[in-house]
Amino acid sequence: MLDPTIYKDWQIAEDAEARLPSVDYFREKMGLLPDEIIPYGRTPKLDFLKIMERLKDKPDGKYIEVTAITPTPLGEGKSTTSLGLIEGLGKLGKNVGGCLRQPSGGPTMNVKGTAAGGGNALLIPMTEFSLGLTGDINDITNAHNLGMVALNARMQHERNYDDEKLASIPLKRLDIDPERIEWNFVMDFCCQALRNMKIGYGEGTMNGFPMETRTNIAVSSELMAILAVARDLPDLRDRIGKIVMAYDKKGNPVTAEDLEVAGAMTAWMRNTINPTLCYTVEHQPCLVHAGPFANIAIGQSSIIGDRLALKLFDYHVTESGFAADIGFEKFWNVKCRLSGLKPHVSVVVATIRALKMHGGGPEVRPGRPLPKEYVEENLELLEKGCENLFHHVKNVKKSGIKPVVCINKFYTDTDAEVALIRRLCEEQGVRCALSEHWQYGGEGALELAQAVIDACNEPEEPIHYL
Amino acid sequence: MLDPTIYKDWQIAEDAEARLPSVDYFREKMGLLPDEIIPYGRTPKLDFLKIMERLKDKPDGKYIEVTAITPTPLGEGKSTTSLGLIEGLGKLGKNVGGCLRQPSGGPTMNVKGTAAGGGNALLIPMTEFSLGLTGDINDITNAHNLGMVALNARMQHERNYDDEKLASIPLKRLDIDPERIEWNFVMDFCCQALRNMKIGYGEGTMNGFPMETRTNIAVSSELMAILAVARDLPDLRDRIGKIVMAYDKKGNPVTAEDLEVAGAMTAWMRNTINPTLCYTVEHQPCLVHAGPFANIAIGQSSIIGDRLALKLFDYHVTESGFAADIGFEKFWNVKCRLSGLKPHVSVVVATIRALKMHGGGPEVRPGRPLPKEYVEENLELLEKGCENLFHHVKNVKKSGIKPVVCINKFYTDTDAEVALIRRLCEEQGVRCALSEHWQYGGEGALELAQAVIDACNEPEEPIHYL
Amino acid sequence: MLDPTIYKDWQIAEDAEARLPSVDYFREKMGLLPDEIIPYGRTPKLDFLKIMERLKDKPDGKYIEVTAITPTPLGEGKSTTSLGLIEGLGKLGKNVGGCLRQPSGGPTMNVKGTAAGGGNALLIPMTEFSLGLTGDINDITNAHNLGMVALNARMQHERNYDDEKLASIPLKRLDIDPERIEWNFVMDFCCQALRNMKIGYGEGTMNGFPMETRTNIAVSSELMAILAVARDLPDLRDRIGKIVMAYDKKGNPVTAEDLEVAGAMTAWMRNTINPTLCYTVEHQPCLVHAGPFANIAIGQSSIIGDRLALKLFDYHVTESGFAADIGFEKFWNVKCRLSGLKPHVSVVVATIRALKMHGGGPEVRPGRPLPKEYVEENLELLEKGCENLFHHVKNVKKSGIKPVVCINKFYTDTDAEVALIRRLCEEQGVRCALSEHWQYGGEGALELAQAVIDACNEPEEPIHYL
Amino acid sequence: MLDPTIYKDWQIAEDAEARLPSVDYFREKMGLLPDEIIPYGRTPKLDFLKIMERLKDKPDGKYIEVTAITPTPLGEGKSTTSLGLIEGLGKLGKNVGGCLRQPSGGPTMNVKGTAAGGGNALLIPMTEFSLGLTGDINDITNAHNLGMVALNARMQHERNYDDEKLASIPLKRLDIDPERIEWNFVMDFCCQALRNMKIGYGEGTMNGFPMETRTNIAVSSELMAILAVARDLPDLRDRIGKIVMAYDKKGNPVTAEDLEVAGAMTAWMRNTINPTLCYTVEHQPCLVHAGPFANIAIGQSSIIGDRLALKLFDYHVTESGFAADIGFEKFWNVKCRLSGLKPHVSVVVATIRALKMHGGGPEVRPGRPLPKEYVEENLELLEKGCENLFHHVKNVKKSGIKPVVCINKFYTDTDAEVALIRRLCEEQGVRCALSEHWQYGGEGALELAQAVIDACNEPEEPIHYL
Repeated sequence: MLDPTIYKDWQIAEDAEARLPSVDYFREKMGLLPDEIIPYGRTPKLDFLKIMERLKDKPDGKYIEVTAITPTPLGEGKSTTSLGLIEGLGKLGKNVGGCLRQPSGGPTMNVKGTAAGGGNALLIPMTEFSLGLTGDINDITNAHNLGMVALNARMQHERNYDDEKLASIPLKRLDIDPERIEWNFVMDFCCQALRNMKIGYGEGTMNGFPMETRTNIAVSSELMAILAVARDLPDLRDRIGKIVMAYDKKGNPVTAEDLEVAGAMTAWMRNTINPTLCYTVEHQPCLVHAGPFANIAIGQSSIIGDRLALKLFDYHVTESGFAADIGFEKFWNVKCRLSGLKPHVSVVVATIRALKMHGGGPEVRPGRPLPKEYVEENLELLEKGCENLFHHVKNVKKSGIKPVVCINKFYTDTDAEVALIRRLCEEQGVRCALSEHWQYGGEGALELAQAVIDACNEPEEPIHYL
Repeated sequence: MLDPTIYKDWQIAEDAEARLPSVDYFREKMGLLPDEIIPYGRTPKLDFLKIMERLKDKPDGKYIEVTAITPTPLGEGKSTTSLGLIEGLGKLGKNVGGCLRQPSGGPTMNVKGTAAGGGNALLIPMTEFSLGLTGDINDITNAHNLGMVALNARMQHERNYDDEKLASIPLKRLDIDPERIEWNFVMDFCCQALRNMKIGYGEGTMNGFPMETRTNIAVSSELMAILAVARDLPDLRDRIGKIVMAYDKKGNPVTAEDLEVAGAMTAWMRNTINPTLCYTVEHQPCLVHAGPFANIAIGQSSIIGDRLALKLFDYHVTESGFAADIGFEKFWNVKCRLSGLKPHVSVVVATIRALKMHGGGPEVRPGRPLPKEYVEENLELLEKGCENLFHHVKNVKKSGIKPVVCINKFYTDTDAEVALIRRLCEEQGVRCALSEHWQYGGEGALELAQAVIDACNEPEEPIHYL
Repeated sequence: MLDPTIYKDWQIAEDAEARLPSVDYFREKMGLLPDEIIPYGRTPKLDFLKIMERLKDKPDGKYIEVTAITPTPLGEGKSTTSLGLIEGLGKLGKNVGGCLRQPSGGPTMNVKGTAAGGGNALLIPMTEFSLGLTGDINDITNAHNLGMVALNARMQHERNYDDEKLASIPLKRLDIDPERIEWNFVMDFCCQALRNMKIGYGEGTMNGFPMETRTNIAVSSELMAILAVARDLPDLRDRIGKIVMAYDKKGNPVTAEDLEVAGAMTAWMRNTINPTLCYTVEHQPCLVHAGPFANIAIGQSSIIGDRLALKLFDYHVTESGFAADIGFEKFWNVKCRLSGLKPHVSVVVATIRALKMHGGGPEVRPGRPLPKEYVEENLELLEKGCENLFHHVKNVKKSGIKPVVCINKFYTDTDAEVALIRRLCEEQGVRCALSEHWQYGGEGALELAQAVIDACNEPEEPIHYL
Repeated sequence: MLDPTIYKDWQIAEDAEARLPSVDYFREKMGLLPDEIIPYGRTPKLDFLKIMERLKDKPDGKYIEVTAITPTPLGEGKSTTSLGLIEGLGKLGKNVGGCLRQPSGGPTMNVKGTAAGGGNALLIPMTEFSLGLTGDINDITNAHNLGMVALNARMQHERNYDDEKLASIPLKRLDIDPERIEWNFVMDFCCQALRNMKIGYGEGTMNGFPMETRTNIAVSSELMAILAVARDLPDLRDRIGKIVMAYDKKGNPVTAEDLEVAGAMTAWMRNTINPTLCYTVEHQPCLVHAGPFANIAIGQSSIIGDRLALKLFDYHVTESGFAADIGFEKFWNVKCRLSGLKPHVSVVVATIRALKMHGGGPEVRPGRPLPKEYVEENLELLEKGCENLFHHVKNVKKSGIKPVVCINKFYTDTDAEVALIRRLCEEQGVRCALSEHWQYGGEGALELAQAVIDACNEPEEPIHYL
């Protein structure tokens, strides 16, 4: 194991990738048959439909969600904790895996970086993960644009042809209102110049139908939002058919189904329903599936990914994006309601520094040194800040899921500070575990892993959507 | 073997795909090491750089090009003959393979169909071949659009910022002339409405730089044209850097290199330099690589594909798109000049019906029955039409390559007609072979295969570019 | 390809073994499923029962037997021709394989050597082939000795116990006659000192039953003779049960079944019914199965091997040990009668030098130079010697099988000599092919391979056992 | 997991074998390269020399030995505990494996059975394990007999030839004393009749040299004893060369080296130095290597097996045959002294019933019901019997190895009895763990596994050979 205080993430990844077992090894480790895995370099896809059919009667594993306190500029390490927990459960001999979101190519090219996790709680292989994996975003781009091509072409044909000629194609007039087009184009990059586009003009009748439109980033496509919440292929087809692409002149919605393009759009997305297999640096399996934005969509990996992982793993870890207020809320009230699945445990991640900020610590500015409140012991701020933590814990409890608090340790945290949180957690009757997965991988997450196992083994409680 | 007079192409493909050996089998058959093949479902990519490095001292195999007489509406079966010849050489126990072009997604969605070959001389697997294979066209689309995003963003920044702020990024002013933009967007569909686009308008300074542009079909991208003629990755990078994307206000070209986007564009295309492995229905290997249009580009599979195939196969068959006048001409005077490779044999494909049309046969109209000249014996028209054939043969001879005439047999052809062509060929001193690969696969192409082998074994002649 | 006039057999083997494709490659080439092959280093076993069950309705391939003129000290190259013919058929693109005998460890240790074939018509891998392959001979040794242990123990018990005690075991008295023991021990070596053994003596009753016996070489075991002619596992079990191991005092046979040891003996031989996969140096598959001596048993590879190979290969080549008089005769009248199989072609191998000796050429003595009759042209001796050849050809014809004469060429043979044999063959109406497989492998055997194919395609004739 | 109080061992094995992952899976799990494993059905061999060369600088794992109290007719479950401990360490997420002895074919045929372990602590695959595995015993049989064949042949030649003729072979006279032959024959069965053999008699000089000899069971061969203690191939060759096969007439030893047969004997044993891979029913790897008898040899699996396993596993478990007095003593004072390896922990296995017998409990007779002392609580006998246990523990301590007492639980054991042993162990300052692996596999052995891990992590002490 490389020391992340010395080595960079890409070096840790490179070292772990050099020792990565073969895809066949992981296939057998997960108990999959040869034709249930679709080869694709080091990151194959798992055949969702075949596997679910074979394992339909197998009981699901334990379902563990990772969320966090309200975010601060100091970060709290949610993905890192998810990956560290997977590794910790692995070190305890459990059959464990997870599912995370796929990053977008846009931010990658904008030099934001796309690593999932960090230190010894890191997702590999890094290059594939950052540059498009198995092409799901390209497939969504093609499906999305095909819809828009069909929409414009239909308006062009309805303008050019009389009713008789249309009927011979055969099409009946949809009478789409040019002022109420809801669909647009997408591309896997951010392009400000495509925020406003005029298209379809020019002489003659063969230049399309004139309209104003825009080109969005691909992962913000409604198709990506749909992929994240679809239960299976028929459900995906059904949801695509219901997309409102425009309105007609009477104000009725015009759907992809009405345009007769829903089948072709689904065909381009036929492979996207199969999650992609990645790995932690300790060589535990972790699926990657769907990458919807959290501001406009669910912001979480897919229901399909969770359903598959719960069949494959005895312990399945996923992350709900953003903090407990918005992330856990969407996870529980939207994703779980649609999937019908109930998590056994929610891990609420906090760092001592972020809690201090919630307790009223001074503002943090990029480029300036951290105020001393964050690098020296300060029990007062910490205790006040724990209010934020326990409010999130209360939300989790209300839903009927067991909470586990994870203190994601930083080296300046003092023993007294850690002891304070432990004491407060005990008073609140909530499990608490210190975790050092960033530095030590699974060995650093043993306490967290054991707390999660214990919580999973408690009797279940009735659920309440919030 | 299924009878193609009874079974359709997709049924023949389905039958052959069900019996397709594993990728590992083909890997060993081609003598490749495990890490020289990149898994991707049934159609893996071959790692061009690794293989060429290992085999750099291995002598090349025989290089066989397939062209045809001037095309008529009756078709002459060039791809079918290429695949049939591969199968015929395989039946004679030769280590044989080929390389063909990848079709475009645009025409596929336009219901033109994308099968390569037909009958028992058919390329498989059909679904993958028709729907994007391993994503090369998506990669080209992303690379192409990235260039345009960078171009517009640069113009926006130069407009918004003064020289000092630009220098801090750090960029020096390129002063691109908005009237002389050469680059545009692409998409893997035909969309008439995107032929004319106005973009970048709107209030404020964050909506890009206003311009008129268009979105073309992806396979017409200059990047696809470059992929087809690049010799290797550095050459690809070099050629991308030299793309003229616009001109500055003084009339100097502004290249992708000037825009500092050439490296990133190449990164998105890093996997496209590896040809994809497909198969004939008789399970002979056939690479697929690059798909440039013939009207605006080379119209042929890539130099990389040929270089790789010549290392892997003792006999390598490729096709030069269109007839001998434009197809062979581009093949020999452009592609071969750039690659430095010289084919041993050019197969000139002809059908008796097409020759009759060249001899002055009546016009053929879709939906009307064929005139009797084409379904009954007519030696006079045939003999006259052979002028077209022998003109192409003369061109081939002039280049220093051995021609072989292939009569692609149709069931209405009479023995006397076949005998006539054979006699005329003999008079012209050119090898001639009857071939029935469409119906009988490799068994039907044995005469052609033997003629090609014999021609390959003749002493070589000096070359002349035409 | 290495030149065998320069390189030794082990060097040719080493070179071919370094390039040997994987077992999985051969498995797919032969169309076998993963669980129909039993891994064992480079020489796996093929699961006879599974494969025959799956392919029971598949028509058999062509069955080709290789025999030779009456042997002389000059040799005629029967195994070499078998392997060369396999390679030649492979070069013509045929799905071909063969089956040969396994050599005995005894002669190996006696420095006789165990290579099959020679030059570029050689069987590999050499080490495994020479040192026991997959342990069939050890299994036969154990099964054989188990029978003898049981026999002696039974005599000991019958001597020591009264009828009542015997019945309680429960056994009924067999009353074996100590003077008429037919069974003995075996070992995979020649040991002269074990030709005569006295065993079972000594004080007390726990030292076995005293008898005189011997220890033979393992491959001479009746179990090996049985393995070669058994049709399948039940037939093997049945034949083992019928082995006469001794006679009782009334002169009735005492079989392995009577001793109740037949099942256990068969259990030790359960894996021996699966032929082992080896290869020619040109990487064509060739089974190895059973190794009975020709002086006391069938002297040929097994019926099981032929039945399996006829399902796997379109052309299956086997060799019948010794010359046409004894080898072909046992092959046709014993092996084929038991198997119910009929070969399409018998190749009768001859060398010009051996024919000259049959024509009255001078005696050849080890250590002395060859008389000039053998190294210079001598048409007279040759023509006279052809009588021997044509007598064997006549025998083959009489059986209803097509003969093909193979002249196994040596570099001193003159054109006139070859022409003479060709003319005589033509007069006799028998196909004749010159072959140079020892020097050129499959390329040297093309004429022979084509002659065999032509003979296979002739209409079949009624059979006559001789 | 099947319940062993309901299902028989062969049923538990059958169930576990049906779910056994592939050999490739285990290869990667153990971090081995493809060419470091030699295929052989489900039980491949590991290439000792290649692996040791590659891993020579890798630190060894923890070395754990399993021994037991003085044996009683009631059994104490040593193999079962070894396999259960491997499974328990696996359940705790450790990289663990073991090495056990191969059983002899003789006892198998005598219906003694050859299963290793039992219940859910069982070795698989059962059939291969019981019927010869990969042929090591056959190889030893052939090597052994080859030596005897050579010895007798030498005496025959020296008798038949004068000095001159001998020198021409070339051999110099060894003058072996016919009265002092030390070598003999072996066979993988018990055969009382071969205890006394007279061989080599008969008329003429070609019947070997007359002598009295015997045929032993193969696993009692000195070659097997040597295999168990050899460090590697050169050491094996060296030790074989030093075998005293006879004495000459002056009383000097005549070795295999003197007979010039040592190299050939080693050649037959070349594959035996590679341990065979088997598995527990929970699919943890366990090597099998060498099977020397404990009465005449070391009675333990090989040094080679331990050296290899310590490179492959972080925790390596082996068993020392018989109780601590003879088994541990030979392990520590012979095997470890020769290997230079030091175990970290010795597990001393005891059952409560066996301890009661050592405490003076009544005799147990086959066929009679167990006296009530063994099925009811009896703290007095138990406490007295613990003297035997603690004497063995003292021996272990004396050597410098950490002892761990394992109470191998039986369902009639009472809580008070278990508590008594725990208290006594605490007084003696020795770790103690209750284990129920027979019934529950690894889950039943978690306490034992944790105790072993804790003991391994204590500081090491200086060693003392006893």
